[in-house]
Amino acid sequence: MTLLVHLGNIDENEWADAFRAKMPDQKVVTSADAFDPKEIKYLYVWKPRDDVFDGLENLEVIFSLGAGVDPILKHPHLPKDVPITRFVDETLTQCMSDYVVANVSMHHRELTHYRFEQRKHYWTQYYPAPATDIHVGVMGLGQLGTDAVNKLASLGYQVNGWSRSKKQIENVTTYAGANEFDTFLANTDILVNLLPLTPDTQDILCRATFEKLRRSVLPHGPVIINAARGGHQNEEEVAACLQDGTLGAASLDVFKTEPLPNDSPLWDLDNCYITPHIAAISSFEGGVNLVAKQIAQYERDGHLDHVVDPAQGY
Amino acid sequence: MTLLVHLGNIDENEWADAFRAKMPDQKVVTSADAFDPKEIKYLYVWKPRDDVFDGLENLEVIFSLGAGVDPILKHPHLPKDVPITRFVDETLTQCMSDYVVANVSMHHRELTHYRFEQRKHYWTQYYPAPATDIHVGVMGLGQLGTDAVNKLASLGYQVNGWSRSKKQIENVTTYAGANEFDTFLANTDILVNLLPLTPDTQDILCRATFEKLRRSVLPHGPVIINAARGGHQNEEEVAACLQDGTLGAASLDVFKTEPLPNDSPLWDLDNCYITPHIAAISSFEGGVNLVAKQIAQYERDGHLDHVVDPAQGY
Repeated sequence: MTLLVHLGNIDENEWADAFRAKMPDQKVVTSADAFDPKEIKYLYVWKPRDDVFDGLENLEVIFSLGAGVDPILKHPHLPKDVPITRFVDETLTQCMSDYVVANVSMHHRELTHYRFEQRKHYWTQYYPAPATDIHVGVMGLGQLGTDAVNKLASLGYQVNGWSRSKKQIENVTTYAGANEFDTFLANTDILVNLLPLTPDTQDILCRATFEKLRRSVLPHGPVIINAARGGHQNEEEVAACLQDGTLGAASLDVFKTEPLPNDSPLWDLDNCYITPHIAAISSFEGGVNLVAKQIAQYERDGHLDHVVDPAQGY
Repeated sequence: MTLLVHLGNIDENEWADAFRAKMPDQKVVTSADAFDPKEIKYLYVWKPRDDVFDGLENLEVIFSLGAGVDPILKHPHLPKDVPITRFVDETLTQCMSDYVVANVSMHHRELTHYRFEQRKHYWTQYYPAPATDIHVGVMGLGQLGTDAVNKLASLGYQVNGWSRSKKQIENVTTYAGANEFDTFLANTDILVNLLPLTPDTQDILCRATFEKLRRSVLPHGPVIINAARGGHQNEEEVAACLQDGTLGAASLDVFKTEPLPNDSPLWDLDNCYITPHIAAISSFEGGVNLVAKQIAQYERDGHLDHVVDPAQGY
């Protein structure tokens, strides 16, 4: 039985060679190889094409290269009852928190303001509030969100977390569900999105949300940071709110269409910080080790870690 | 006996009123008031003028509003044997660490690079290394440096500390003295200066120092962050090193002459991040509470905290 490596625009041979080196007894093919689809037991996938599942009658496990599995779950030919596992990796988590901390602290310290002042050679002293006065609200308290809130709390920020079901995290004020969403927003100066993309969270970053954020501490208005999915944001409303002062600034790493189209108004807004979906990447070594460990465990006792619940979408 | 409030360009009346409210039994005057200099027992001082000490024959304690006491120590008429106390304040420490964390993480995450790319509407994926690969070296391990290294370590950075005498700090590799300075630099990608300004540390941020920094991880070269004193930096060499690639970027909050003169080349360097000496300010409330506490303690048992050693300069 065989592991099929299907990775869209990523170099599949590099991954296949690494899997072979790590698991000498495991047959490994890439999507470009000639293979009998009935032989495929495991699928390692990123950006699935339309035909990815064709003929895979004996598929037993789908391993996602990404932490977000929405492109797999919405695939029209996804086989029912085949477990999907998410990618969980310390380096991915570290990089995501690095991005979140850098952007939260940059906005808290008013980088945009001082860059404008510098261009004009202005020396005007204005003192940002201490982190202990700034409320950071993180949406999504899974692996990534939990690491981010812990690091933000260690810096002294007042940290709020919001998730579907209630979580208990030391030094973090937690909110859950639709009922507590408005209270969470009313206590948040800087809003960080690390949610999974599901029908419930689609377009959650919109004007109605932004208008409920706290406006008392940051002098140029509340800030949003999106490192999850472009599907979470209404980009027309983000652009409009950055221009009319509803938002003071935004850091966006993800977009509805990627690469971000050349004519998007977001590119040219001075208070919009665009990065090309690089907040965090699944590491090569982490991916190879995790899949090898999962396959060994699955063949030993049938157990898999990080299995997605399709009803919840993550 | 009287407390004299002498604060240069700061509003002395606001401080004097706050001291009177906090210590109803203590007589308080400002430098603009008419007073008998022989009555002055305590001096609360910032940016001392030439005549600040004239006639203060009975002065017993000098309280500095700032954390750095170099302007007091180098005053030509500083009375001998009058103890000077430094300002130590949780809010000042928090703000300084906020500035350090924001600038370290901003440079680590290559903000300059992505802003250039954004202006050109470029979508080119490049992944910054995780914080666990970045070595941050902090010079100065007093109240401010110790808080900064602890916060940086909690974010996952490899943290080095350098100080005059050897310190032991959990999760931080410490170096001490001139003998270990080069080794410290060779293990540092991002250099943070929080030293006191003394004859030994004058112009420590110079080409000879920058050339010894590690050049293996940050793609545009090592970074310096100076939140201590302008006297620590050779500004001509900083500007030249930012232009010739010896340094990838710099964040400077302090300058030899403040405000930074309009013709300084630093203003117009895109990889130089200038702020107008606003990294951290002594808080009003913190200052009033500390001086009131010190005076009460001193009058009770003659003890003072945070006393400066003039031989060391801090």
